[in-house]
Amino acid sequence: MKGNLIIKNAFAVTPLGTSAVKGEKMGSLREIPDATIIVKDERILFCGASSEAPAVNEEDFKVLDANHRVVLPGFVDSHTHLIFGGYRPDEFEWRLKGDSYMSIMERGGGIQSTVNATRVAGSDELKEKALWFINRMSQMGVTTVEAKSGYGLDLESEIKMLDVIKSLEEDENLKLRIVGTFLGAHAVPKEYKGRTEEYVDLMIRDMLPAAKGKAKFCDIFTEKNVFEIDESRRFMQAAKDAGFKLKFHADEIVTLGGAELAAELGAVSADHLLHVSDEGVKAMAEKGVVATLLPLTAFALREPYAPARKFVDAGAAVALATDLNPGSCFSGSIPLTIALACIYMNMTIEETITALTINGAAALDLASETGSLEEGKSGDMIILEFDNYRMLPYYVGMNCVSTVISKGRVVSQN
Amino acid sequence: MKGNLIIKNAFAVTPLGTSAVKGEKMGSLREIPDATIIVKDERILFCGASSEAPAVNEEDFKVLDANHRVVLPGFVDSHTHLIFGGYRPDEFEWRLKGDSYMSIMERGGGIQSTVNATRVAGSDELKEKALWFINRMSQMGVTTVEAKSGYGLDLESEIKMLDVIKSLEEDENLKLRIVGTFLGAHAVPKEYKGRTEEYVDLMIRDMLPAAKGKAKFCDIFTEKNVFEIDESRRFMQAAKDAGFKLKFHADEIVTLGGAELAAELGAVSADHLLHVSDEGVKAMAEKGVVATLLPLTAFALREPYAPARKFVDAGAAVALATDLNPGSCFSGSIPLTIALACIYMNMTIEETITALTINGAAALDLASETGSLEEGKSGDMIILEFDNYRMLPYYVGMNCVSTVISKGRVVSQN
Repeated sequence: MKGNLIIKNAFAVTPLGTSAVKGEKMGSLREIPDATIIVKDERILFCGASSEAPAVNEEDFKVLDANHRVVLPGFVDSHTHLIFGGYRPDEFEWRLKGDSYMSIMERGGGIQSTVNATRVAGSDELKEKALWFINRMSQMGVTTVEAKSGYGLDLESEIKMLDVIKSLEEDENLKLRIVGTFLGAHAVPKEYKGRTEEYVDLMIRDMLPAAKGKAKFCDIFTEKNVFEIDESRRFMQAAKDAGFKLKFHADEIVTLGGAELAAELGAVSADHLLHVSDEGVKAMAEKGVVATLLPLTAFALREPYAPARKFVDAGAAVALATDLNPGSCFSGSIPLTIALACIYMNMTIEETITALTINGAAALDLASETGSLEEGKSGDMIILEFDNYRMLPYYVGMNCVSTVISKGRVVSQN
Repeated sequence: MKGNLIIKNAFAVTPLGTSAVKGEKMGSLREIPDATIIVKDERILFCGASSEAPAVNEEDFKVLDANHRVVLPGFVDSHTHLIFGGYRPDEFEWRLKGDSYMSIMERGGGIQSTVNATRVAGSDELKEKALWFINRMSQMGVTTVEAKSGYGLDLESEIKMLDVIKSLEEDENLKLRIVGTFLGAHAVPKEYKGRTEEYVDLMIRDMLPAAKGKAKFCDIFTEKNVFEIDESRRFMQAAKDAGFKLKFHADEIVTLGGAELAAELGAVSADHLLHVSDEGVKAMAEKGVVATLLPLTAFALREPYAPARKFVDAGAAVALATDLNPGSCFSGSIPLTIALACIYMNMTIEETITALTINGAAALDLASETGSLEEGKSGDMIILEFDNYRMLPYYVGMNCVSTVISKGRVVSQN
């Protein structure tokens, strides 16, 4: 009965279609108060009023009674750095004390510290650690998660990271779907300090061909003094030519034009966007680039939040993700993401649900596969503890997820 | 072997004594990297270097291996309203949209909505709901929790709430210790609108005698247009005379002098304190009144945080608690409390741990019973997932607790 499931007495709540389509307004949900959901061979066969459900032989299905509680599509966490060596708790403390980034770097902190730890870590160690995070994500209702490389910054270590991600992707026992992203352009490694163009050459010549087939996306940290606009354009055009779909870390620290570049190159998403220009918002909305906002990072860094309303009001598709990483944001909290979106970013709960489901899927170019309760899609869904989805922001920072279903299998029960 | 436990290979971390003593500086922790902890008959028999542990017959004990992970005293959540009827998610949404308190009241929101739901709720229903919250608290490492009445606001309903709390206190299967507080003075009930003094008379004449023996503490919402300073003084003096220990909701919305009154009457704690005056801070520090800060409430209401540093620097004992309630702060998140304290209130992690353990215990007049890993105290402790307590704020908003032990019994394992 693997992947065959019936949920009875569900209050089904779902976005429809993909909100990432240009000009479509995000945030309207379909509500079916007395719903039945049938998943057959891992795919949704039916989601609608119980009175209209097709007759099936229940013996071939696992049957759950939702007791009128809410059933949502599984959450999609479309921006994480879940593969990494080591931890950086001391650096977190130094930062809170007001120590400068330079002084932290001098004491062995910063991204290079994680690069060093990741380079020496074995694949099994990295995978085991990732599995621990994945298990926790699953408990919070995540059924699809993106995972980036980017702590290797040399050919061998980047490929090691991508191979770990690939082995997770192909692990049939895994509780969720993994999507890999090559982020060799996360930083300029210390070996190439002052020689950014040479590192870009290396990535184009050696890394992109080796990463091909191991990752669906290519991503870059487009930022002042890291990869400038021209360097980013050259690298990402090469990645696009090599067949990668594109993502950008854009306009996180200063207004540089990463959003505009993402639109120019037809990226699937641009992420962070705390300091996006109005032109960048407009360009992304026009080109259908998903705006992936990462409020946990802003929260952890005491930064202002990204302008979610500007994007929504411009007709752009907003996704929310955790940015789980060992430096700026060591958190995978979906409940806190929801709280920050609703309380501090003025997103409605309907927009927030859309951003964590279908728009997260769209940010991974998977909107036709997951992210809504529609026939033909993967049976990825969650049952809440409550019969009202408005409990999600109201129960502040607390996990409202009771049961998690991935491809029609129950994978977590809280 | 009930209440007999040995934890081996522990990294024990604990405050010592009680920080609520006047003039004592809070936030220094004792660290024992290779520790053994022995609990016998529910009480800590030994917590120290493994090399110095007394010989005991291990067959009489449950034995846990902490694998060098951190063991802390169990958390104390010293301010909650965990007994209540109904939920108020719609009101939460209205407030986020900027609707005024008056317009929310007119649509049936506000505290009176919870009072109505609590008055009609049966004791079993209230208890069952509380048990659901208690289970979640336990998973986050809470081993002692305070519970207030205050949604009855008439004799019968207040006593019903206190009886529910009492039945939880006396429930031997309960996963944690409950401490009851009578909060008939939570608001002026609608039946007494404009007749606050008459309601105070009723509480003094009928409620205090009936609540006596059912609650250790008496609390009041001292606030402009609720219970003013003179009304608060009259009622709380009567409560003190009747043998209750005192707590105050003080200076939450405006600077009224609740902190000073708490000091004047020798209260055990004053809570909230977002708008405390400098004189109030000084008076509380001098009189050893614990300052119980509730950052989740400020977070949920987008209010500024209470001035934790002023209290710490004045030599006052700061406790942190959740304020779990169905209105202003429907959250019991200890991980988010830690994040807010460290990131937004400039408390160190050592101060934060102290505030959630021994100072929480002091806020319940239980500092000699729980809140630290010291011989003779109750065997209330938690094992973290990590070997470094600095992971607590660093793993932002995420639960770091692996195993929870109450009175020497393992009650939660994540």
